Amino acid sequence: MAKTNPGRFFEDYTVGQQIQHAVPRTVTVGERALYHALYPARHALYSSDEFARGCGLPGAPLDDLAAFHIVFGKTVPDISLNAVANLGYGEGRWLKPAYPGDTLRARSTVIGLKQNSNGKTGVVYVRSEGLNQRDELVMSFCRWVMVKKRDVEAPAPETVVPDLAQAIAPGDLVIPEGLDFTSYDFALAGEAHRWSDYEIGEQIDHVDGVTIEDAEHMMATRLWQNTSKVHFDATLRADGQRLIYGGHVISLARALSFNGLANAQMIAGLNAGAHANPCFAGTTVHAWSEVLDKAETTAPGVGAIRLRLVARSGGEAFTLKDAAGRYLPHVLLDLDYWALIPL
Amino acid sequence: MAKTNPGRFFEDYTVGQQIQHAVPRTVTVGERALYHALYPARHALYSSDEFARGCGLPGAPLDDLAAFHIVFGKTVPDISLNAVANLGYGEGRWLKPAYPGDTLRARSTVIGLKQNSNGKTGVVYVRSEGLNQRDELVMSFCRWVMVKKRDVEAPAPETVVPDLAQAIAPGDLVIPEGLDFTSYDFALAGEAHRWSDYEIGEQIDHVDGVTIEDAEHMMATRLWQNTSKVHFDATLRADGQRLIYGGHVISLARALSFNGLANAQMIAGLNAGAHANPCFAGTTVHAWSEVLDKAETTAPGVGAIRLRLVARSGGEAFTLKDAAGRYLPHVLLDLDYWALIPL
Amino acid sequence: MAKTNPGRFFEDYTVGQQIQHAVPRTVTVGERALYHALYPARHALYSSDEFARGCGLPGAPLDDLAAFHIVFGKTVPDISLNAVANLGYGEGRWLKPAYPGDTLRARSTVIGLKQNSNGKTGVVYVRSEGLNQRDELVMSFCRWVMVKKRDVEAPAPETVVPDLAQAIAPGDLVIPEGLDFTSYDFALAGEAHRWSDYEIGEQIDHVDGVTIEDAEHMMATRLWQNTSKVHFDATLRADGQRLIYGGHVISLARALSFNGLANAQMIAGLNAGAHANPCFAGTTVHAWSEVLDKAETTAPGVGAIRLRLVARSGGEAFTLKDAAGRYLPHVLLDLDYWALIPL
Repeated sequence: MAKTNPGRFFEDYTVGQQIQHAVPRTVTVGERALYHALYPARHALYSSDEFARGCGLPGAPLDDLAAFHIVFGKTVPDISLNAVANLGYGEGRWLKPAYPGDTLRARSTVIGLKQNSNGKTGVVYVRSEGLNQRDELVMSFCRWVMVKKRDVEAPAPETVVPDLAQAIAPGDLVIPEGLDFTSYDFALAGEAHRWSDYEIGEQIDHVDGVTIEDAEHMMATRLWQNTSKVHFDATLRADGQRLIYGGHVISLARALSFNGLANAQMIAGLNAGAHANPCFAGTTVHAWSEVLDKAETTAPGVGAIRLRLVARSGGEAFTLKDAAGRYLPHVLLDLDYWALIPL
Repeated sequence: MAKTNPGRFFEDYTVGQQIQHAVPRTVTVGERALYHALYPARHALYSSDEFARGCGLPGAPLDDLAAFHIVFGKTVPDISLNAVANLGYGEGRWLKPAYPGDTLRARSTVIGLKQNSNGKTGVVYVRSEGLNQRDELVMSFCRWVMVKKRDVEAPAPETVVPDLAQAIAPGDLVIPEGLDFTSYDFALAGEAHRWSDYEIGEQIDHVDGVTIEDAEHMMATRLWQNTSKVHFDATLRADGQRLIYGGHVISLARALSFNGLANAQMIAGLNAGAHANPCFAGTTVHAWSEVLDKAETTAPGVGAIRLRLVARSGGEAFTLKDAAGRYLPHVLLDLDYWALIPL
Repeated sequence: MAKTNPGRFFEDYTVGQQIQHAVPRTVTVGERALYHALYPARHALYSSDEFARGCGLPGAPLDDLAAFHIVFGKTVPDISLNAVANLGYGEGRWLKPAYPGDTLRARSTVIGLKQNSNGKTGVVYVRSEGLNQRDELVMSFCRWVMVKKRDVEAPAPETVVPDLAQAIAPGDLVIPEGLDFTSYDFALAGEAHRWSDYEIGEQIDHVDGVTIEDAEHMMATRLWQNTSKVHFDATLRADGQRLIYGGHVISLARALSFNGLANAQMIAGLNAGAHANPCFAGTTVHAWSEVLDKAETTAPGVGAIRLRLVARSGGEAFTLKDAAGRYLPHVLLDLDYWALIPL
């Protein structure tokens, strides 16, 4: 019997199937430090225990995206080892911050299946959840991936396409217990702009750029225990390149967005996301944002801001798609998320 | 007086000589996180405090190989600064896991000396031991290195070649206090294969590959405070390459072996090891294992499995030596170790 | 209103102006581990909690230079984002070690201004201070940078050039509370040389070399949250190179100086420093030191030694300037500092 993991193929999934993912992970200040070494992360709430306590939290949590990456990474051996493409994200919510000492694990439920017309692949829709050592949900999100069939003769399953929300409704965002921005220190946070200073439709060029090295994206992707082979093995592609984990570009772009969105401290919702073009080492990444929506919350002093975050490799800020609606070749990422920001 | 360390030469060693190595090291969750960033390490017992507690330990220890690297690294300035080659390992035993907060130091005893017939070099055999802050032994291993003579005219010492065991006898393996695999969670660990599922002679191709970067092996080797110049200084070799610390390849291969040996959780013995060919940045490393032996232990639910772990750069899995008994050029590492695995 | 930080220009500074820098930072054992992965750091007092306790401290502090880099990094968005050159350092004192768990923040006071004769730039002199979460000063240093004018027509300010000391007087060095070298363990520290073994004028070639990778200096510079664009964006220079943060060279050279100065444990004063030539990835850095002065202190067993630390890229040890007094092209760094060393 072969003992290595062959991954699941399209015909191995059934709607309603539940999968417990392996290798729980205790996160610590070590992961927190590495996050700051790998990305130009400066949001004060994640940089300073004192600042976080001033916002009503017990200390600085692990970056919200690190929690996302860990949960995502755990799902890879079961969901996307034989994936051809990571097609999209939706209905993502952060439900509880992860703190140093927490142990995270993950599980997924298959919520949709749709065989492609070529009969060789199909789309698998899953809802993945992260839990901590107290069995509390820390996050939940949907993603859909195109997965190979093992046997092209295998019969197509009944098509089930889940009806996912275009965006998380503001009232469904979960505000971390205790979060309070009424004594927020704008000087320490780095910028004076508050919720009311941003207008829907406003665009911000985050100006700074970072050139990515192979050692960096591999260290990050390993830290999240993501086992997708294409990120690590330079012999798999004809061009000798390692494909950079899309989440690395998300974290990089989000960190760059500090410059102009320093007070968009916590990520609360992931509405949608597309990795528009592949990214390789040597790429210099810039980012821009657009304010898509704004909402109030029930937490003291806490507003919500819905942002489009675009990472680009060259090109110009604020350019996204061509006339036919296709992403321009320099667009790496188009992410739609909700952040929490002082009113 | 020159104040820098010239290292010891062959004629500086005498059988029975004891050497206290410098620079004790406190290991923390920072080192644990870095280990997971530098290697695709996924063994659950080292990834999750909760999983480790479920196995009877107080928490997730530092990877066993990290403890080895730290002890090894401490010996370099005294044992191998003038070494021409690291010839072999033997009689290695892990005696106590290292936990975050422990401070490790090292000492060595010279157990053998043999001048080479060319009169320019000799083989030094040492037993090196790691101790923690309570003066408890955490590990012990022998290694032998070829060391230059300072003065080729220096008289040859009496030849003493230690009689090292071919392998640690199963009864001599030290099982960490409290280790208990009777409630082992195979689903969380990532694979269902237990001790009884492996047969002596069975071979496993671990499938995944990792391409190594200079920044990664240098960060790892520095973290273990290994001062061997060839790993860091690209001007020392005519080809401008930095020779990768052999232990980096050991850790990489061991981490890759998770895929097929996810339950071979703890390393308990190092029977033998050879760095068959040098490794440089840009190499894509794959690994395969062979089951050499199996044994029961006195700890509840805990079996021992003796494994050959081979790292290769290209070539084919399960190939090792040519007809003349020489390692094939694509073989990087041939390691023989005992691991603990649930019955 | 543009929301990104444009940085300050020369005419935005006034003598006496106080600037609170943003983004406080909690340092942990994660940062301590990363420091040891990024630099070949081996000073025992920073490597081992046990060794530090044997010297009267509560545990191993964060490397003194890491504290410096963090404070420096915080000042960049306000002081040197539009800097043309970092001209010098002076009157630097470490006032309190930073321990894991401490939260550091920074503030600066403008202490001098001098417009250049070309009318396009000017020199800004600041005193920057680091504070911990108890509002205790952890360090203080002056630096001066050449900053662009936004508007060349803006009137020149009155010239004020601060009168900085050539070197910190030994009596002004602050010895960490409790520091006691009377039970110092030279064997564990790695070298036998004490204060009395060093002579003023003595020069030490630290022998070892390290070749720098882009991934390493970027991870280090990000860890200190230094936002200077030229360190990260390869598209800014015509040659496609990222300029290495000068502090990365300082830490690398200081770590290399362990070999010959293993007992020069703590840095207490920064007298002067010049980044003589720019440094880029691929450079192999060597270091040499010269003993400039010696002094006793009031702490038990603790002496002070004033050292010149020179980092070079090629060239020869102990070469510094040409006949005209200009730094030779292979000199990267000329640093003048006080260290604490057992008597």
